[in-house]
Amino acid sequence: MIRIGIYGYGNLGRGVENAIRQNDDMELVAVFSRRDPASVKINTPGVAVCRAEDAENMSDKIDVMIICGGSATDLPVQTPALAKLFNVVDSFDTHAKIPEHFDRVDEAAKASGKTAMISVGWDPGMFSLNRLYGSAILPDGKDYTFWGKGVSQGHSDAIRRVDGVADGKQYTVPVQAALDAVRSGSAPELTTREKHTRECFVVAKDGADKAKIEQEIKSMPNYFADYDTTVNFISQEELDANHAGIPHGGFVIRSGKTGADLENTHIIEYSLKLDSNPEFTASVLVCFARAAARMNAEGMSGCKTVFDVPPAYLSSKSGAELRKNLL
Amino acid sequence: MIRIGIYGYGNLGRGVENAIRQNDDMELVAVFSRRDPASVKINTPGVAVCRAEDAENMSDKIDVMIICGGSATDLPVQTPALAKLFNVVDSFDTHAKIPEHFDRVDEAAKASGKTAMISVGWDPGMFSLNRLYGSAILPDGKDYTFWGKGVSQGHSDAIRRVDGVADGKQYTVPVQAALDAVRSGSAPELTTREKHTRECFVVAKDGADKAKIEQEIKSMPNYFADYDTTVNFISQEELDANHAGIPHGGFVIRSGKTGADLENTHIIEYSLKLDSNPEFTASVLVCFARAAARMNAEGMSGCKTVFDVPPAYLSSKSGAELRKNLL
Repeated sequence: MIRIGIYGYGNLGRGVENAIRQNDDMELVAVFSRRDPASVKINTPGVAVCRAEDAENMSDKIDVMIICGGSATDLPVQTPALAKLFNVVDSFDTHAKIPEHFDRVDEAAKASGKTAMISVGWDPGMFSLNRLYGSAILPDGKDYTFWGKGVSQGHSDAIRRVDGVADGKQYTVPVQAALDAVRSGSAPELTTREKHTRECFVVAKDGADKAKIEQEIKSMPNYFADYDTTVNFISQEELDANHAGIPHGGFVIRSGKTGADLENTHIIEYSLKLDSNPEFTASVLVCFARAAARMNAEGMSGCKTVFDVPPAYLSSKSGAELRKNLL
Repeated sequence: MIRIGIYGYGNLGRGVENAIRQNDDMELVAVFSRRDPASVKINTPGVAVCRAEDAENMSDKIDVMIICGGSATDLPVQTPALAKLFNVVDSFDTHAKIPEHFDRVDEAAKASGKTAMISVGWDPGMFSLNRLYGSAILPDGKDYTFWGKGVSQGHSDAIRRVDGVADGKQYTVPVQAALDAVRSGSAPELTTREKHTRECFVVAKDGADKAKIEQEIKSMPNYFADYDTTVNFISQEELDANHAGIPHGGFVIRSGKTGADLENTHIIEYSLKLDSNPEFTASVLVCFARAAARMNAEGMSGCKTVFDVPPAYLSSKSGAELRKNLL
């Protein structure tokens, strides 16, 4: 049995807890939280909820710590610190800062002899893997990543900060015409505006100026100004009834050419359609935790990413079983 | 530079030759053929065409031999024999016989200290990888593989053996309604007939009984009897003009569930749309040849499959570049 700890118990941590139950070779040992443990109710009977600072005393009881904090301020501190004590997996997703995060975590994990897997999930994660496989197979080609349809937490937060807004949710939507153009093999150059639209569902406060809210959202730099954005005003009841979920997904497409005169076109497409973004991310984290435990047992320490993991290490099945049934 | 040999020079071998030209870190050293070398014209100026039996004298000049023979009778003999002398890659695609092929090749490669990569391509190969990733991420789920639309060489050969047939081509076509049902997340049970149809383009000999040909094709066991098959009679000119290509492709879909009560559904889909089946397969072989060279340099010998290869080994880019640009 691989003994797992969960560090941070929000949507992602709860997803990891559920995913562990779906894997017979894993058991949840403890959940660590910065909140008062007495106030944290978890779903797994008999498992301890501990204070975050108690983790350091449990390094012999946990094979892999899955760190479920946020990328902005939690993971840059937590992952290097915990990699001194545990094999760890995190979902660090600030793409531009991955190299520096990697270096910090690598130093800690090499010193401790632990295996630390960063930026695991679907983007970064499974989407990255598909960008890598696609570009290795078809070097003369072009990559496209589309996100959605799905809820962007960052854009939803931005809407809710607008004056006069009581609540709101934002969906990122890939543009069908752009997807079709990519799939045709024409390898188009696409602007930000051509690839995605942004769809907002907004609950205005009583008496708020809706025209002003709409204008403010649509002109918000970085978040909305570069996109075709639609703003729909709805009631809180409608928002709660129809927009409570956290669906997401997207597409990674490689369009490339082969042949003596590059006369043949090939399209590789990977897509996800997810009812729950945090639960799917959690499921990816859990199978990479299995790989982290195995790689550490074989002496592969230091910081790793999805690019470094032999796929067979993700499965609970033996090499012979995999070759017989899945190859 | 990684020095490559091509063993067998048909459609696949020519595809490998073209793919090597697309990869700056590789060079073609020699092509080996069972035909008289003087009769074999290749596309790369200055590269030697050698007799198959001369390969044994060139083990110090070639880093990886890419074996481009057929799975029925060539590869079961060639891959174990060549793995005694070279790192090798093959595209052995008889799924049911992979375990015994693996064992034979593993014995040879372990004895020689070489790295032998078998069953590389898209199915087995990239489709297998996606079946593995999908089932590791979503253990409560179901796998679906669809092939096509594309030319099946085996079925085309079967048509051409029918009495009265001068020429013919067969396309395997996935059934749209079945694909839609799988994508809906309903996890349907599908029969062979429900998943694919078979479309035949047949040139009849002068005076042949077309009704009898059609009947014979549609009732052929294993090949057509279990499918809804359509037979179109066309002229040789039309066959040559419209059906000369070797396109193929397909879909691997994982439909799975997560959540405390498995209430959330996720769909992972990987698809290929290929203008040239052998050229795409060749492109996959070439990037796995890079991995074979690297794994051997790091002491990982024996038989390997796509499941054993850390994805980063497929790319000519460094780990730091990959993390910066693709993660």
